[in-house]
Amino acid sequence: MKNDVIPDVVIRRLPVYVRTLRQMLTENITTASSEELGTRVGVSAAQIRRDLSYFGRFGKQGKGYDVGRLEEAVTRILHLDRQWDAALVGFGHLGQAIAQYHGFEENSFRISTIFARNLDHVGQQVNGVVILDQRAITPVVREMGVLIGIIAVPAAAAQAVADQLIEGGVRAILNYAPVILRVPEDVWMREIDPTSALQSLTYYLAGTRPVEAPRHKHRAGNLVDEAAGE
Amino acid sequence: MKNDVIPDVVIRRLPVYVRTLRQMLTENITTASSEELGTRVGVSAAQIRRDLSYFGRFGKQGKGYDVGRLEEAVTRILHLDRQWDAALVGFGHLGQAIAQYHGFEENSFRISTIFARNLDHVGQQVNGVVILDQRAITPVVREMGVLIGIIAVPAAAAQAVADQLIEGGVRAILNYAPVILRVPEDVWMREIDPTSALQSLTYYLAGTRPVEAPRHKHRAGNLVDEAAGE
Repeated sequence: MKNDVIPDVVIRRLPVYVRTLRQMLTENITTASSEELGTRVGVSAAQIRRDLSYFGRFGKQGKGYDVGRLEEAVTRILHLDRQWDAALVGFGHLGQAIAQYHGFEENSFRISTIFARNLDHVGQQVNGVVILDQRAITPVVREMGVLIGIIAVPAAAAQAVADQLIEGGVRAILNYAPVILRVPEDVWMREIDPTSALQSLTYYLAGTRPVEAPRHKHRAGNLVDEAAGE
Repeated sequence: MKNDVIPDVVIRRLPVYVRTLRQMLTENITTASSEELGTRVGVSAAQIRRDLSYFGRFGKQGKGYDVGRLEEAVTRILHLDRQWDAALVGFGHLGQAIAQYHGFEENSFRISTIFARNLDHVGQQVNGVVILDQRAITPVVREMGVLIGIIAVPAAAAQAVADQLIEGGVRAILNYAPVILRVPEDVWMREIDPTSALQSLTYYLAGTRPVEAPRHKHRAGNLVDEAAGE
């Protein structure tokens, strides 16, 4: 399993596989074909088989996948069999929503530090985490050994925050600020960019009312990387 | 320009091109090579050229792109030369953050309707928009001719909300609920899924401290669809 031969787009689909497999387990579904899994995830069966083939052999010819074992395997591949601490920077409306969000905790993440610029927020507690002064990002993150940063500050402040996080040792950043950040080669980024998502949807709303269905379409747009040929 | 021959992944990159081109205009940059544009966007120059080639000829051999004209062209392609109304469903922490977010307005979108389940919120005003009872989604959306829905309700409620929006005529959905929604063929979806984004980042944090830089990496992970070959 070598980092450098697995396309990032494959890695980005794996969490959706994990979520889908966990959902199937709650429905007491113990085996699934690549077709069934693909339908739930929103990609083709061929895509499922190709993605998983990077990590070994999982399905049995004619029997499909063992849902429980596949869930465990993908969980391990993504290193979700442990809990990860994350530092949240920004405590405006968005930062507060993120701090209150329970989805991270249920999925191997814990916001262990929160930084705010507004001194009225500094010293407050959120779920047992004391809010710290944003100026202390680098030393605190380094001291705590936090590797994951979540940026929820205005666009103009985001690059400086990213630099301070990275200076403190952060190697993975989830960026909510609507700006493209420049980061060193050994830092990984994901952007949460709802404006771009909306702006790509309007492409399909051309000459609407009545809407003509496009002949080809991808259901889960942000998971699909296949070119027109597939 | 036919909808069915342009891969969705290309469409998803266009908003980032628009944002980048607008940023360049504010910096008084009037021409740019595909290399320069690619560096700013975080994809290869070849990718830029290939993406734009779907829509016609934009660059001049040896002269690069006219930034202003390219920005106008991509804006038109995405139908961002008008304002789009959107209905927001959900007014918890996340819904409130979305309602207060100014990024949509500056980028061709206006939240024209807000629906809440909590009757304490119904009747309140946010930026001049009165919050309505969530049970009225279908008739209100139909009456207003809204084509875009933003779902910010808990996972368990999301499918029902999507169904009601679509019943009212919505054809494009931005889904913040951590669940895969089933929608008809003529409805387009984007998912805003920070948990999955975080879960795909930890893949790269294997055996960290010290971190070994992967040999190949994509800087803007969610924009890149290229397989390992490129």
